[in-house]
Amino acid sequence: MSSINELEDMDKLRGLSWMVALSQGLGITMVVLMGVWLNTYMGGFAWDGSGKEFNLHPLCMICGMVFLYGEAALVYRVFRQTEKLKAKIIHGSLLLLAFIAVVVGLVAVFQFHNHGHITNMYSLHSWCGMTTVILFCLQFLIGFLSFLLPGARPSIRKFYLPIHQFFGGAILVLSLVSVISGLDEKLIFKLKGSGYSKLPPTAVIANVCGLVSIAFVFTILFIIQKSEWRRKSSEEEENLSIHFRALSQGSDTE
Amino acid sequence: MSSINELEDMDKLRGLSWMVALSQGLGITMVVLMGVWLNTYMGGFAWDGSGKEFNLHPLCMICGMVFLYGEAALVYRVFRQTEKLKAKIIHGSLLLLAFIAVVVGLVAVFQFHNHGHITNMYSLHSWCGMTTVILFCLQFLIGFLSFLLPGARPSIRKFYLPIHQFFGGAILVLSLVSVISGLDEKLIFKLKGSGYSKLPPTAVIANVCGLVSIAFVFTILFIIQKSEWRRKSSEEEENLSIHFRALSQGSDTE
Repeated sequence: MSSINELEDMDKLRGLSWMVALSQGLGITMVVLMGVWLNTYMGGFAWDGSGKEFNLHPLCMICGMVFLYGEAALVYRVFRQTEKLKAKIIHGSLLLLAFIAVVVGLVAVFQFHNHGHITNMYSLHSWCGMTTVILFCLQFLIGFLSFLLPGARPSIRKFYLPIHQFFGGAILVLSLVSVISGLDEKLIFKLKGSGYSKLPPTAVIANVCGLVSIAFVFTILFIIQKSEWRRKSSEEEENLSIHFRALSQGSDTE
Repeated sequence: MSSINELEDMDKLRGLSWMVALSQGLGITMVVLMGVWLNTYMGGFAWDGSGKEFNLHPLCMICGMVFLYGEAALVYRVFRQTEKLKAKIIHGSLLLLAFIAVVVGLVAVFQFHNHGHITNMYSLHSWCGMTTVILFCLQFLIGFLSFLLPGARPSIRKFYLPIHQFFGGAILVLSLVSVISGLDEKLIFKLKGSGYSKLPPTAVIANVCGLVSIAFVFTILFIIQKSEWRRKSSEEEENLSIHFRALSQGSDTE
């Protein structure tokens, strides 16, 4: 029986491996397309308040809120044998990198707007994007306090975990909404409607980048929602938490 | 023990009731905001190839691909005691209404473009929207063949069900991506960047409609992903399918 179970497990994990490989291919394609689009067709990068500084906005946001965020979501599926605390540190570190990219991306767009006397925060894209970033920061903070610091009670962790998982997916979806509306908006501003409608290479590459980002996000969502591919260590984690709590309570009363 | 279980079930279902009530409030607000925006601020409706015909496009798409589609997704959570086949017919009927709304919405935008000599299918919004509609039609057709017609094998239904459920959520997310990018695009075309940035009432109402549609979609996704709120009758359904198959095979050989 045991060897049959092991074979079944290997079979399941083979499916996971293929999906993770697909997600990596899509993620890298998405970032490369975005980089090539901005560098070759949109004037490249600089830090001078011009359109070249603006170009850092889509690059940083897609690297941070989509690619690195998606990678962080996969950590518990990919690092299955790694000690839980180490997996949490990898998850948190990837999100910290994402957060840094987001800060640079937001500074770039606000500086570009202020430099060119363009109003901030009026478009639906900006409203969605800011909602996404605020939810991401809240999720990051509450996740850190609940799961990485040893103080939180197991009952609180158990209550918060499904909420953390739901908002994890929801924030990735909101990032996708922001990416697609942002790409569309930028192409209309840059090419005007009439230029965009002729589908020059710059429009085609950005549209394709949008479709690839949709495929990347749905591949990540498919992997994380599939219950068979979840890491089987919630019991271990709970036992460890209780152990930690017992230790810390012990040291409190000593 | 039984009464404790019943109390627990009632407690769980009370949470579901509140979330369903919230989703209905958000869904109705979303449709009303869209209707008021198009009727009062965007010139109203007509079927004459003008901008008034275009206005039927966002109204039909949000009614079909977001509101009715979301309602259809809730059927198995809300009609818990209804016979499974009846629940399936309600689910399919709501999706049929959604499909009709989508067809009217697509005809409206293509006629408006053709009448005004505007190119079709160039923007990222249109690429996402068309991808959404094609996936919706495929899902509708395969779902109908697999779950509503009695011919499909239980093993095929069991294999396809999680795929149907995943794509169900994915298509709703893609609809949201299309709604937000479409609203943003329309406001830029109509008001130009400089007019939009002053946030006149027409821009505020459309932006708020976008945020409400995000809240509606995430409420629906929260309800359908929560395993405790799933209908407990997959076994009954399978038994019924086997019964149906036995009957139909019996009549084949008679």
